[in-house]
This record gives sequence, structure tokens and C-alpha cells, in this order.
Amino acid sequence: MTYVEDLTAETCRQLLAGEEVGRIAFAGDDGYPVVLPVNYRLDGDLIVFRTAEGLKLENVPLRRVAFEVDRFDPLARTGWSLLVRGYAREVTSAIGEPYESLRNAPLAPWAPGSKDHWLAVETESITGRQIVSVSD
Amino acid sequence: MTYVEDLTAETCRQLLAGEEVGRIAFAGDDGYPVVLPVNYRLDGDLIVFRTAEGLKLENVPLRRVAFEVDRFDPLARTGWSLLVRGYAREVTSAIGEPYESLRNAPLAPWAPGSKDHWLAVETESITGRQIVSVSD
Repeated sequence: MTYVEDLTAETCRQLLAGEEVGRIAFAGDDGYPVVLPVNYRLDGDLIVFRTAEGLKLENVPLRRVAFEVDRFDPLARTGWSLLVRGYAREVTSAIGEPYESLRNAPLAPWAPGSKDHWLAVETESITGRQIVSVSD
Repeated sequence: MTYVEDLTAETCRQLLAGEEVGRIAFAGDDGYPVVLPVNYRLDGDLIVFRTAEGLKLENVPLRRVAFEVDRFDPLARTGWSLLVRGYAREVTSAIGEPYESLRNAPLAPWAPGSKDHWLAVETESITGRQIVSVSD
């Protein structure tokens, strides 16, 4: 038997800090949402990831975006997910602190290629829930 | 060493058919995208999942949505992801075939509670890519 419960903001934050891969979601320019996985690091209230030129760099900065992280166990049919809403910026030398120093901490992109642009999502809200299994 | 390659539409379709959990993304009414995991079934070109009253039922039908599926190996830092763009409908007795018969095949929601509404995303495009590890 399973039940669903909302996660507290503190639990969401701990889960967000403990994972490496999440999914950035933003409005595409053709009317469809876009969802792309990235490896990230949590730095205070900022979700930081790197990208090359392309779809993310064109559409993420200065926009309202969502960031989703989850983990599921297909055998137990349990798991949790969380959803961050936030405002995204590109981290450049012009942006000032606390953003600029984000680039000092290591963050190696999983995908190869030049990922010279750093993006940061400022967390405005985090919500999450989990499916919990209990003995019948 | 790793490299990234685009997946063919056929490979994307096979991966989509082989997984159980994906993430439906849609525009929320507050300006932020919403991304929520669901367990689903692929039926022809239709991604089918069940939901209760709530955010998905209010925002998904008759909209352009995205559906994301991925799988990663944190140790190898490899993985794949795919992104479906499509148009979503609620499957009701009024909608006619081929939608109506979707409800005949089994699809047990992981999360408990009454999930009486069936939603279907008609696949318009699928794109995907993978990070592949090769020996140095």
C-alpha cells in the first residue's frame, strides 16, 4: 500500500543539494515547453549549471523557469520529486556578487564540449512530494 | 572520454516505449513552467497517463506540452534523454477512436487515490541525445 505526502521545504532543499542531475524547463519560442537535463550544483539558493551556445543560453536567462529533480524505484513503485520555480540569469563578470564567485567552485559538465556559459536559477519556491510504501 | 550524439527518431521511440516514468511539462498560469513526473504507457503515437482533479487536469488538455524521459548513470557520467512535443487531450467517452479504447488497456497509477481522468499526448516530434563513454 502506498500514500502520497508533501515534502517540507527543508526536505526539498536537502534532496536538491544531494542530487547531481535535474531538468531545466522553459518556454520554447514555438509554443511548446522545453525540458532538458543538466548536471548542476546547489550554491546557497542558486542552482548553477553550465551550457554552451544554443537553446538553453538563448531561452533561459532573464526568464521564469522551473527546475525538476526526482528519483524513483520502479520495483517498489515509490519515489519523490521536487519542483523549483525561479528566475534565471547568466553568470557573467558584469553581474556582481554573489553570482560572480559561483564560477570559482568546480562544476564539470558531464557532456563534452565547451560549456563556457554559467547559468544560475535563483530559487523562489520549492515544492515536492513523495510516494511512500507502507506494509499492508 | 565521452561524446554526445543525437538519437534517431526510431531509437527515441524505442526508449520511450521501454520506460515507465516520464515528466509532463506545461505552462502554468503564473508564468512558470510546470514539470511533474507521471507513470505512463505508450500506445501507438500516444503517451497515456492517468490523473486526478488538479493542476495537470486543469492545464494539460488542449495544450501544447512536452514530455521528457531520461536515464543517467552517475558513476559513468553517461546517459540519454528524449523530449516529445505534442498536443494533449483528455480521453473521454465523447472523444471517439482511437482515443477511447486507450482506457481499456491496464495502466495502474503508482500514486494512490482516484485517478479517474486519462490524458493522452499525441506525439508530434521526438528528439533525443545521449552521452556515450569511449575508451581513451
